[in-house]
Amino acid sequence: MRHYRASMPYERPNIERLSAYVPGEQPQTSRVVKLNTNENPYPPAEAVLEAIRAVTPEALRRYPSPQAQTFRETAARAHGLAPEQVIATNGGDELLRLAVTVFCEPSRDGRGGVGTAEPSYSLYPVLAAIHDTPLTRVPLNDDFSLPEDFADRLNDAGCRLAFIVNPHAPSGRLQPLDQLERIARAFRGVLMIDEAYVDFAQRDALPLLDPARGLDNVLLLRSLSKGYSLAGLRFGYGLGAPGLIAAMDKARDSYNTDVLSQAAACAALEARSAAHVSWRQVVSERDRLTAVLTERGWFVYPSQSNFVLATPPADGPDARSLYESLKREGIFVRYFDQDRLRDKLRITVGTPGQNDALLQALPDPQTA
Amino acid sequence: MRHYRASMPYERPNIERLSAYVPGEQPQTSRVVKLNTNENPYPPAEAVLEAIRAVTPEALRRYPSPQAQTFRETAARAHGLAPEQVIATNGGDELLRLAVTVFCEPSRDGRGGVGTAEPSYSLYPVLAAIHDTPLTRVPLNDDFSLPEDFADRLNDAGCRLAFIVNPHAPSGRLQPLDQLERIARAFRGVLMIDEAYVDFAQRDALPLLDPARGLDNVLLLRSLSKGYSLAGLRFGYGLGAPGLIAAMDKARDSYNTDVLSQAAACAALEARSAAHVSWRQVVSERDRLTAVLTERGWFVYPSQSNFVLATPPADGPDARSLYESLKREGIFVRYFDQDRLRDKLRITVGTPGQNDALLQALPDPQTA
Repeated sequence: MRHYRASMPYERPNIERLSAYVPGEQPQTSRVVKLNTNENPYPPAEAVLEAIRAVTPEALRRYPSPQAQTFRETAARAHGLAPEQVIATNGGDELLRLAVTVFCEPSRDGRGGVGTAEPSYSLYPVLAAIHDTPLTRVPLNDDFSLPEDFADRLNDAGCRLAFIVNPHAPSGRLQPLDQLERIARAFRGVLMIDEAYVDFAQRDALPLLDPARGLDNVLLLRSLSKGYSLAGLRFGYGLGAPGLIAAMDKARDSYNTDVLSQAAACAALEARSAAHVSWRQVVSERDRLTAVLTERGWFVYPSQSNFVLATPPADGPDARSLYESLKREGIFVRYFDQDRLRDKLRITVGTPGQNDALLQALPDPQTA
Repeated sequence: MRHYRASMPYERPNIERLSAYVPGEQPQTSRVVKLNTNENPYPPAEAVLEAIRAVTPEALRRYPSPQAQTFRETAARAHGLAPEQVIATNGGDELLRLAVTVFCEPSRDGRGGVGTAEPSYSLYPVLAAIHDTPLTRVPLNDDFSLPEDFADRLNDAGCRLAFIVNPHAPSGRLQPLDQLERIARAFRGVLMIDEAYVDFAQRDALPLLDPARGLDNVLLLRSLSKGYSLAGLRFGYGLGAPGLIAAMDKARDSYNTDVLSQAAACAALEARSAAHVSWRQVVSERDRLTAVLTERGWFVYPSQSNFVLATPPADGPDARSLYESLKREGIFVRYFDQDRLRDKLRITVGTPGQNDALLQALPDPQTA
């Protein structure tokens, strides 16, 4: 009676070819030192837990505010913007996907696509492939700074959208604001500055949204995952010119954020000072980790994020074997088997105790 | 200093043209009788609230299971399927959007698109427009049954995906299983049976997933919004052949459901018997509402859902003026200003008290 038909696969050729995004390992136990997916090592603010517990059965029963209106107003107040400059999304990933959907053309003549720097967040190429839109990769300079001709090269390739993660992942480098502004002015499409890690940096790109600058093509991505210790919540948001926000608002799923995450996200932004304490702790530990590894002969890129990209000394075990030996000891860091990264480890900054555990598990030339 | 550029709009032409989905009004107050968006009038199970409150700060801090693995296993057990036949989504809407993304081609030669019956869930055309894929609309028969040539017409139009909402919205009609099976066999693309309302119906289409039937192109959509009183949670899921599920799994946002909704959704399915009580109450009230309205001269389509589509008597006020006068009294029902529907109201079944309030607010020929 089985007669599967010859019409398989049903999916589009670009989806059939697609290699899905591979997230960092998520062992579902807390008996590991988890320094591989850039979570904040400190718990979310107590006010967030209270807000979640205060959600009533009646609120769960009903549809939520489609646009997360209270959150939009809360975020607008927090950033000195108007609610029309805010869109709430199911994690920052939804914002990235929405931008691709709204601004990029599925491949026809090889134009209308996405431009990124290389290396960068490995989800960007996956989103381009899902949308079947062309992807232009511009290599970063050796120090992971952006080449000055970035916008020109994207314009030449007909890109309609550019992703710049800033601070950069996986290096942690913060690109200068004046360079981002030059890129926004020169680029003919929409510039999305992915600020997923900005809470750990010395400054953000919000000044680019000042109407006095006259830029209508800049979007900022924010996420509660890292800065607010809420990776489990899936809540992000976009900030930008009302026209860009309105276009994405039309294309999002009709109720894209839920009543629990809306309540938690509002509470998180209201309790910003609590999160701020964790940012200072992470920054202080990041600087310590950088100093100790450097002292042991590692090269550590100066990071403005909650992770460091670090190259182990040439006379010791290589990055991949360190990754594997750490994992055997229950310490997870991230290893990228790709050009310019396979000799490095990306290490999330943990609590002092977690960082000590990592440092103890790594070979120490002083005690060797 | 302002010098907005001539490159606006930045969005694709199909997005610029797009009229966004218009959800039913969501007054953010509980001082109304809300019978317009098909929410379940009874609260979610206490176990769901407990599961939400039991989510720890540690779980919020970390990324969730990317595939909602525990939920997949729970749903698989509940439906007698394998976890590989389940995909969890951020509301049923995400599943619909994913199916369009994965199976339909952006418009090139007018083929590769979506087919729906007409009238139907008004989100379907919006999703096709966002993806810029062709939409084929096949009119339902006068009694809202599916025409026998539905699959042939979709095949002729080159459709790769068909949406059938069953029970049908907005009529509440349940299409026969053998007809759905004939359509699945004849249709060359993927058949998505949208069972958002199936908990209030006499049967579902799960038998079509039995491997003995040899159908590899059927997907079922389930939602916790109505049956489990969790519209605020945004949690839905898809059931179907592993190949279809795997293709959509590659294209979903990398962490598309959050730790709170995963926990709540597992608890909801485990506490299915509690939800079952609400289904019986809704069905009983649906039948009472149908009987009373019919007695008063309305035509009410036989509904297997948690709403009724009802035509007021020709000798009284028309549907639109009834909708408006009810709204003035704080009673919200749904009015669709479109062909075949503008002489009707779609009324969600409420609690006995809410339904009484509605019936009292409507003109009663007996007391007139």
